[in-house]
Amino acid sequence: MASLIRNAGRLRPLKRPSPSTYLPTRSVTISARPAANVAAAVMPEASNVDQPFFPSEPQGPTIRTAIPGPESKKAIEHLDRAFDIRSLNMMANYQNSFGNYIADPDGNVLLDVYAQIASIPVGYSNPSLLAAATSPDMASAIINRPALGNFPQHDWASILETGILKVAPRGLDQVFTAMAGSDANETAYKAAFMWKRRMERGGPEVEFSTEEMDTAMNNQTPGSPHMSILSFRSAFHGRLFGSLSTTRSKPIHKLDIPAFDWPQASFPHLKYPLSENETENGQEEARCLAETEDLIRNFHSPVAAVVVEPIQSEGGDNHASPAFFRGLREITKRNNVLFIVDEVQTGVGATGKFWAHEHWNLAEPADMVTFSKKAQTAGYYFGNEDLRPNKPYRQFNTWMGDPARAILFRAIIEEIERLNLVENTARTGEYLYDGLERLAQQYPEHIQNLRGKGQGTFLAFDSPRRDEFLKKAKGEGVLIGGSGAAAVRLRPMLIFQKHHGEPLIMSPF
Amino acid sequence: MASLIRNAGRLRPLKRPSPSTYLPTRSVTISARPAANVAAAVMPEASNVDQPFFPSEPQGPTIRTAIPGPESKKAIEHLDRAFDIRSLNMMANYQNSFGNYIADPDGNVLLDVYAQIASIPVGYSNPSLLAAATSPDMASAIINRPALGNFPQHDWASILETGILKVAPRGLDQVFTAMAGSDANETAYKAAFMWKRRMERGGPEVEFSTEEMDTAMNNQTPGSPHMSILSFRSAFHGRLFGSLSTTRSKPIHKLDIPAFDWPQASFPHLKYPLSENETENGQEEARCLAETEDLIRNFHSPVAAVVVEPIQSEGGDNHASPAFFRGLREITKRNNVLFIVDEVQTGVGATGKFWAHEHWNLAEPADMVTFSKKAQTAGYYFGNEDLRPNKPYRQFNTWMGDPARAILFRAIIEEIERLNLVENTARTGEYLYDGLERLAQQYPEHIQNLRGKGQGTFLAFDSPRRDEFLKKAKGEGVLIGGSGAAAVRLRPMLIFQKHHGEPLIMSPF
Repeated sequence: MASLIRNAGRLRPLKRPSPSTYLPTRSVTISARPAANVAAAVMPEASNVDQPFFPSEPQGPTIRTAIPGPESKKAIEHLDRAFDIRSLNMMANYQNSFGNYIADPDGNVLLDVYAQIASIPVGYSNPSLLAAATSPDMASAIINRPALGNFPQHDWASILETGILKVAPRGLDQVFTAMAGSDANETAYKAAFMWKRRMERGGPEVEFSTEEMDTAMNNQTPGSPHMSILSFRSAFHGRLFGSLSTTRSKPIHKLDIPAFDWPQASFPHLKYPLSENETENGQEEARCLAETEDLIRNFHSPVAAVVVEPIQSEGGDNHASPAFFRGLREITKRNNVLFIVDEVQTGVGATGKFWAHEHWNLAEPADMVTFSKKAQTAGYYFGNEDLRPNKPYRQFNTWMGDPARAILFRAIIEEIERLNLVENTARTGEYLYDGLERLAQQYPEHIQNLRGKGQGTFLAFDSPRRDEFLKKAKGEGVLIGGSGAAAVRLRPMLIFQKHHGEPLIMSPF
Repeated sequence: MASLIRNAGRLRPLKRPSPSTYLPTRSVTISARPAANVAAAVMPEASNVDQPFFPSEPQGPTIRTAIPGPESKKAIEHLDRAFDIRSLNMMANYQNSFGNYIADPDGNVLLDVYAQIASIPVGYSNPSLLAAATSPDMASAIINRPALGNFPQHDWASILETGILKVAPRGLDQVFTAMAGSDANETAYKAAFMWKRRMERGGPEVEFSTEEMDTAMNNQTPGSPHMSILSFRSAFHGRLFGSLSTTRSKPIHKLDIPAFDWPQASFPHLKYPLSENETENGQEEARCLAETEDLIRNFHSPVAAVVVEPIQSEGGDNHASPAFFRGLREITKRNNVLFIVDEVQTGVGATGKFWAHEHWNLAEPADMVTFSKKAQTAGYYFGNEDLRPNKPYRQFNTWMGDPARAILFRAIIEEIERLNLVENTARTGEYLYDGLERLAQQYPEHIQNLRGKGQGTFLAFDSPRRDEFLKKAKGEGVLIGGSGAAAVRLRPMLIFQKHHGEPLIMSPF
């Protein structure tokens, strides 16, 4: 990265490094046979986490052509006929991708520090996942997709218990399964609205009034109440109509789409380095908490829940202290609104804890925690029976998730445990943070506001020439993502190890 | 069904038929090996569609216990700890389900005329789908899930062309892939809002104003405009916040959830039999069309699109004539709003055409058609380049669908073609309709308003003792669904043949 940074600003033609710089690309052929034995053969003991998890992984990137190369260009042109390709970053060949390395159709192989927008947990073509993907249970889940609310499969409880629920956050022992982050959040919001109205109504036994039933059919109060979910400035919670109403990341995400008139509170703008700005940051967080409580008490549309990300991800990797989040838990509790933690991007190990909100040491659990991305399936956890609606069919849809993806998440959890990947991510993150901190001192004009200390590999910094930097990195074989206006965000997989991080923090290679 | 109907109203204890009444249950073991050769071996030539597609399918239901039996009860109790089971209809064992027959953990095997709420197209444990589900491409799609908007796989264009796009409705050659019916509809709505605002703004080149960008971040006009989607009374379009605002099926679906103040028009209430009520029905449809146009012109929140189901399914199987839908196409065109056809439940062959709206002979194609359910994946088709937003990242999310499910849909399409299943469904539907019509004459107190003539197997009738009837049918080995207040809806798979339908229409068996 040092060389990347030094060269940022001097746009030079994309060079083609000598193939001898890197090991040759390893082409991975996906076999349909169970690969458990392969997994056992190629993987070291989990106890020694500094040995490579996947010895047969490429030793580094291979750059054969400018990206996109001729084959990629052909594939992009082909796709453009029927599919919007304007957000395309890179055409991939996943059959040739392995571990932390993503391949393209031209034989280029890049170190992937973005991981499908933080969504690949244990590496491309992971042999243990391949075994799960080719199991009879998976085959049945793929071809016999159930309507889980009506006709669950006999082993659905067991799939949940040995998978999704095995990693349920403390205090939350129930789950509503969904398809992606957006609908996970929206179903959590729906649960919050039903809960709030039931309390206002006087309990689960109180029947809906005729007026409520009539007005609901016409989208009018009181059946369709004016109530709200409070979110924070710069937050991202999804793109559907309810979730988008709580998303406050960028105008381009929201323009022209009708939205609910729901409140937003300020999210702390912390100053870095944190150790030199403690007082000021404390005041900033107190200000934001006060604003939040004021909105809960006074906003014209009653607040049913507050939703927050442990680290605002799409909004630019904005952090707040554990004390801030404990404050939110207290405020929501004393004002009788729910506290929803959106762990769609932060969850499943990336921060060095399985759930990022474990860093907070909450006295009382969050009311709901939503998940997706690295879980490959989605939904929300809850622990309070009152969050089950008072009647069936209020929270319902045809599929209610996907057993195939739930089975995959179970395999991911097993792989995380087998290789101690949460611990690995904590350790690798420390190593990366220290290295980036040294670089930031050398290149303060390129690395600013380094953040994520103690948060695993969930690291970010601001770079005034961010887009140029990301482009250059890609040309040299390192795929990195941005977020917000100027943030470079590192979102490596949980199998990212020190030796993968070296090129990012060692000068010059 | 005759015996079911005769006995409806006389609630008797669930009897346990002698096992010799039915063939023994065939236990299907899912093999992880490609099964293409198996498929070839067990299936007859497509040319003779009256021969069984799957000779090894059970010859009829097997009822061994009351439903739920002891094993099912255990599984339900187990699941109840962490998952809401109050909408549960039946605990299933899909590994033991085959073709049109669904098995449960107690060895009961039922003829499934509901098919996971109309979502299983070509049978449980279908050998051709099993081959696709155990292919190397599927394994890679399962374990290497891409963020399709940023990093599509090199063969995504080909997967679309040989699958989703191969069956695209006439005039629509582009697709936005999604996860389920709700988000398919909501992304179509978003496309409609962007399109409408772009026209108001003066074209794709006109930039957003600072005021628009600022207000959008605060969910206020003009950035978050007051605009609407018009839907119809009794419509069902999904359960998320935007789609739920267009859903008008039942209060229980909507109560306590904030909704957009969007308009609803009357959907025709047709009188049956149609041949005896032509004049009145024509007037009713004209009234609904006039009301629709009046709302488009005068509703306080400008209408960007009209969304309609070809047959209102959840709302009780309400039909309208092709002339009504042609009228909607004309009205939307002349008032410059989009026409969205929601084929989530009607699509993929069930009405005897691949898309139900093919029955209408529209002079000009619909603007968008949404799909899900039997497609096992979801999204919306469109044909007008103007429906691509003017900038990237306006219509975007992490996954944007699921290649694994897109590969499965391709295999489903191939199976439909191989066995001529759309034609089969048209023929079987005619046979079923005729038989039900005869039964309706015999039992007018039980079968009323029979509807779906010429609409394949997408048949329904009203039954004053509907819930009792469905329960009794289940006890006798036939799983049927209801919709609306009193409708019995038949939603068999596309592999449902005359011999499967016999017990439903022959007296007495």
